Amino acid sequence: MINIKFQPMDINVRAGVGENLLEVARRNGIFIDAPCNGGLSCGKCKVRIIRGVVDFNGNNHHIKDGELKAGYVLACNTKVIEDLVIEVPSGESSYMNGMKIEDLSGPRDQKIFQRARDQVLNNGMKFCSYIKKDYLEIDLPTLDDNISDWDRIKRHLRNQLGYSMVFCRLPMLRKIPSLLRESEFKITITHIPRGDNRTTIINMEIGDTTNRLYGVALDIGTTSVAACLVDLYEGKLLAKASSGNAQMKYGADVIHRIIYATKNNGLEKLTHAIIHETINPLLKKMYQDAGVDKNEVTAFVAAGNTTMSHLLLGIYPDYLRREPYIPTFSGAPFIKASELELEANPETFLYILPSIASYVGGDITAGVLASGIWASEENILLIDLGTNGEIVFGNKDFLVTCACSAGPAFEGGEISCGMRAAGGAIERIEIDNNSYIPKFTIIHNEKPKGICGSGIIDLIAEMLKTGLVDRRGKINRDLNTDRIRFDEYNIGEYVVAFKDEWGIEEDITITEIDIDNFIKAKAAVYSGIATLLDSLGMDFDMINKIYIAGGIGSSLSIDKAIEIGLFPDIEFDKFMHIGNSSLMGCYLTLMSEDARRKMEEFSKEMTYIELSVYPGYMDEFISACFLPHTDINRFPTVEKILEEYSTNRAI
Amino acid sequence: MINIKFQPMDINVRAGVGENLLEVARRNGIFIDAPCNGGLSCGKCKVRIIRGVVDFNGNNHHIKDGELKAGYVLACNTKVIEDLVIEVPSGESSYMNGMKIEDLSGPRDQKIFQRARDQVLNNGMKFCSYIKKDYLEIDLPTLDDNISDWDRIKRHLRNQLGYSMVFCRLPMLRKIPSLLRESEFKITITHIPRGDNRTTIINMEIGDTTNRLYGVALDIGTTSVAACLVDLYEGKLLAKASSGNAQMKYGADVIHRIIYATKNNGLEKLTHAIIHETINPLLKKMYQDAGVDKNEVTAFVAAGNTTMSHLLLGIYPDYLRREPYIPTFSGAPFIKASELELEANPETFLYILPSIASYVGGDITAGVLASGIWASEENILLIDLGTNGEIVFGNKDFLVTCACSAGPAFEGGEISCGMRAAGGAIERIEIDNNSYIPKFTIIHNEKPKGICGSGIIDLIAEMLKTGLVDRRGKINRDLNTDRIRFDEYNIGEYVVAFKDEWGIEEDITITEIDIDNFIKAKAAVYSGIATLLDSLGMDFDMINKIYIAGGIGSSLSIDKAIEIGLFPDIEFDKFMHIGNSSLMGCYLTLMSEDARRKMEEFSKEMTYIELSVYPGYMDEFISACFLPHTDINRFPTVEKILEEYSTNRAI
Repeated sequence: MINIKFQPMDINVRAGVGENLLEVARRNGIFIDAPCNGGLSCGKCKVRIIRGVVDFNGNNHHIKDGELKAGYVLACNTKVIEDLVIEVPSGESSYMNGMKIEDLSGPRDQKIFQRARDQVLNNGMKFCSYIKKDYLEIDLPTLDDNISDWDRIKRHLRNQLGYSMVFCRLPMLRKIPSLLRESEFKITITHIPRGDNRTTIINMEIGDTTNRLYGVALDIGTTSVAACLVDLYEGKLLAKASSGNAQMKYGADVIHRIIYATKNNGLEKLTHAIIHETINPLLKKMYQDAGVDKNEVTAFVAAGNTTMSHLLLGIYPDYLRREPYIPTFSGAPFIKASELELEANPETFLYILPSIASYVGGDITAGVLASGIWASEENILLIDLGTNGEIVFGNKDFLVTCACSAGPAFEGGEISCGMRAAGGAIERIEIDNNSYIPKFTIIHNEKPKGICGSGIIDLIAEMLKTGLVDRRGKINRDLNTDRIRFDEYNIGEYVVAFKDEWGIEEDITITEIDIDNFIKAKAAVYSGIATLLDSLGMDFDMINKIYIAGGIGSSLSIDKAIEIGLFPDIEFDKFMHIGNSSLMGCYLTLMSEDARRKMEEFSKEMTYIELSVYPGYMDEFISACFLPHTDINRFPTVEKILEEYSTNRAI
Repeated sequence: MINIKFQPMDINVRAGVGENLLEVARRNGIFIDAPCNGGLSCGKCKVRIIRGVVDFNGNNHHIKDGELKAGYVLACNTKVIEDLVIEVPSGESSYMNGMKIEDLSGPRDQKIFQRARDQVLNNGMKFCSYIKKDYLEIDLPTLDDNISDWDRIKRHLRNQLGYSMVFCRLPMLRKIPSLLRESEFKITITHIPRGDNRTTIINMEIGDTTNRLYGVALDIGTTSVAACLVDLYEGKLLAKASSGNAQMKYGADVIHRIIYATKNNGLEKLTHAIIHETINPLLKKMYQDAGVDKNEVTAFVAAGNTTMSHLLLGIYPDYLRREPYIPTFSGAPFIKASELELEANPETFLYILPSIASYVGGDITAGVLASGIWASEENILLIDLGTNGEIVFGNKDFLVTCACSAGPAFEGGEISCGMRAAGGAIERIEIDNNSYIPKFTIIHNEKPKGICGSGIIDLIAEMLKTGLVDRRGKINRDLNTDRIRFDEYNIGEYVVAFKDEWGIEEDITITEIDIDNFIKAKAAVYSGIATLLDSLGMDFDMINKIYIAGGIGSSLSIDKAIEIGLFPDIEFDKFMHIGNSSLMGCYLTLMSEDARRKMEEFSKEMTYIELSVYPGYMDEFISACFLPHTDINRFPTVEKILEEYSTNRAI
């Protein structure tokens, strides 16, 4: 055994000789960002050896010569062989807490919110939660009226409220004897009515507490998690919280996490990471902010993609990624908060929004509910751009959906300069058509650390228009600017930020490899949209509206997304950001039993198209691996812009 | 802190100076029999100090002078003050394992069994368990048929078996993905149908296991616990097991256990003792005997008195013993085996037979079911003689019940020579009318250790007939026999077994105090019966049959029970032993869903008479505190026998 000290957190751990450094760190809860999970492709798990020697093959383009000399290695490819002191970049806190996450609190969200609520009401549904509280003043027992406590409660509910069948479980029963005596038989019950005459009691409190009834809505993204605490009477948001998903340390995307889950007790670690390291801290923070006790939280609705749902419940996810891609469940059975050790009343039922397929999850079902496609006369296209990308198209009569294998590019993954939308991320870029000098905005106005998804879209669009890259994504080798350079393998890169200029450790650049990766990602989305419409015999003209949801949403430039061919070339005013529609769908499910029923109905009727086996999809995809597309006629507006830029360039 | 070594088990423990020795032993899981739970009344917690000094007040009639010198003390009244070595009588193994417990295996039981089963069938009920197994060959998933595993199972059940609503819980869901693939989608489900089209899956197994479907019936007595493992297709008993209730170390009767439960974490200890120290070892033994895996056990029915039911579920029982004597529940909600950590499939539902009142429990409901009173045209009196005594009277049209506060006397409690019906207990006695020499039979033919309930009834009846005691229970001071003697307080005793004759440590005797205690116990039962009949305006003539159930049952002499006035003086052939009717009622509940429904129905309609507030009960009781009764006219047969004995005596 050897000793390893991790800096700056000053944590000492023990490890066996020959162990993988990334695994040692993970086992001890030390966050090292490793989106590709040891695949050697991302280069993000860089750490510095301050003392000691490791077994590391430095022949890798992610570690430059100078870095190797300074002690930098990739943790995923390093074996520990003697005592070490290691410096880890302070990734976790910024990723976990500094992340820019859509919640429901901005003014735009308030509007979307109002719209979503109105849509429910306009469709004849009630805005009324599935959970109820009632205050009971129960007759005291006597020698003549000596039925049991539980029979007494049931009798009261039958006689006073008309419930002829009342249920509870053991933990409730255990509370009854003391609670009734302490309250002098004046209690408030929290219960879930089903039909007219049945109900299940999930909480009992002393005295009249009917004015306090709370629920949680929770969006579990692959990268980020957002939650809000809701007053179930008014629907008011009492608190909100968001952070990164602590599962990130086990892989950036769902595929890497699924693979991690199949190893040793990987599944257990992933479930622990989402519940104990991500969700519970968010819940505690919200309860503290709002002055609510966890036992008062008796409704809980969550949505996530299908993999996130499986990992949350501790269900072996490997068959999601193996043909024929079968999830274990779409709609989950009743699950109590206590079964998952969620911070809420232990008897609270967790409702997980149903998924449609292995790669179209409950977050999309939530999005359909929140966006109101299910009630629309017009044809609406919903695009959720998170890790991967999911698409829904339809109206009140039909809904079709598919998943694009776009990978994590829109969240900065698999791009050398890419990062998530956290502090220090460049999120918007313009490049001067003549000087090739970029102007950009940075999240939280920090020093730049990398470029997030919306920034990369801007960057590639600007590079295309200014002629820095051609339509294949190759860098123009004839330009006279120090921002373009080539490495020993003749791979070109464009410098977005020089290190000296910004006082940062390295230049921030985008390489031809990055651009190529990103083109594949955007092509996956575009070809998904095209295929979905084709499956219905429809074309782009028939789209009345395009709703953009997901993490990338708020800072995304629609125009530039069209310029690179991510979105089809249709009128700007048809596009609309709808924010975190997954969280909003959870909120609506929490607040309206009618909306929940409607959602369960349409989720069962949605048609899922499996792109990988759809005839012609592969051709669509290959054609889309151009900027904006092989067939420029599909993008007339972009063609015009490219011509204008070309004309306006000095040279 | 001081060190205490307990012998012969050779266990070393630590204790604080001044701690109570009985508590120290209990805390460390060392069994010291203490039926009165520190009340100083029973003298059963005698231990010997081999080394060291304790703080013990020896001024107590349970410890004789010689014993005090030899180091004997009462553990309940001893404070530890320095390092000790202590010898504990080897009580536990004999009580826990050597106990004579009614199960369902004897030839008489087989007959009763057959009768109970016939009664169910004759009343148009099906002999068919509420639990089912079905073998499914499920269509394999494909890219075109890619619904989730759980939806696939549900679809199969809907299409093939007609269940339109199928439920399961999280642990089931977690099993699904691997189980389906390992079995190539050929599985057997265990499920609980409700109505025509709903069912809940509680187990899934690989391949066709429909021939293996097992359940457990369990009788939880205050003193002893009996269980049987049942093949749910045939109703065959595959294994049986019984032992003492490990809660005995915390008090002999329900009142002492309730008091113990209210102290510190007493409730937790009592629940642990019944589940982990009593029930689970019995279950493991049965599963091993029958070659059944615990996961194959998917039905579980238990009955016990109301206190036992509360303690099993970990429910605070104190209100059972406080006026107005209110239980927390009569019928328990759904409880999973995993919630109680019972050794069975974790998803198995535990069905606990409903109780009627605080002192008429599910064991009595079970007894009513097993005895068939609910279907009888004749008037039947059911007497359960365990710790306390419960009585039911009625026929198919009405049922009334009450509880007698007889205490533990019928199980040997609160009687100096009393013991439970375990190895070494004298169970039958005759006394020569002239020599006063007793003849007796001993359980397991061991050396005599004490006298169990049936032996005490015999003894007192014989003493009455032979003139050793008068009708007040006082010993005749004028007889010339060395078997009668008086202590310094002039309290008389009769020697049943001399120590020298048997090679035992002490004479086995019965004192006037014992007889007095026993008379009160039998008076409680007799006056209970009388009051129950009085409440209906009926008298003893209207009883067509008397069924005797409970631990004392099998060795009880009906004639002698009448002679002491425990039972009314009616024809012998109206009496019948029905064995462990509680266990049999559990068996019927397990095997017949119809019987279970019927039982729930009549349990709700049973009228409970609270004796303590019934007008005239106290007078009845006091009149019954005679041998056989103050009013000898009520016992004409006994009057005649007493005259005959008197006439036949030499002197």
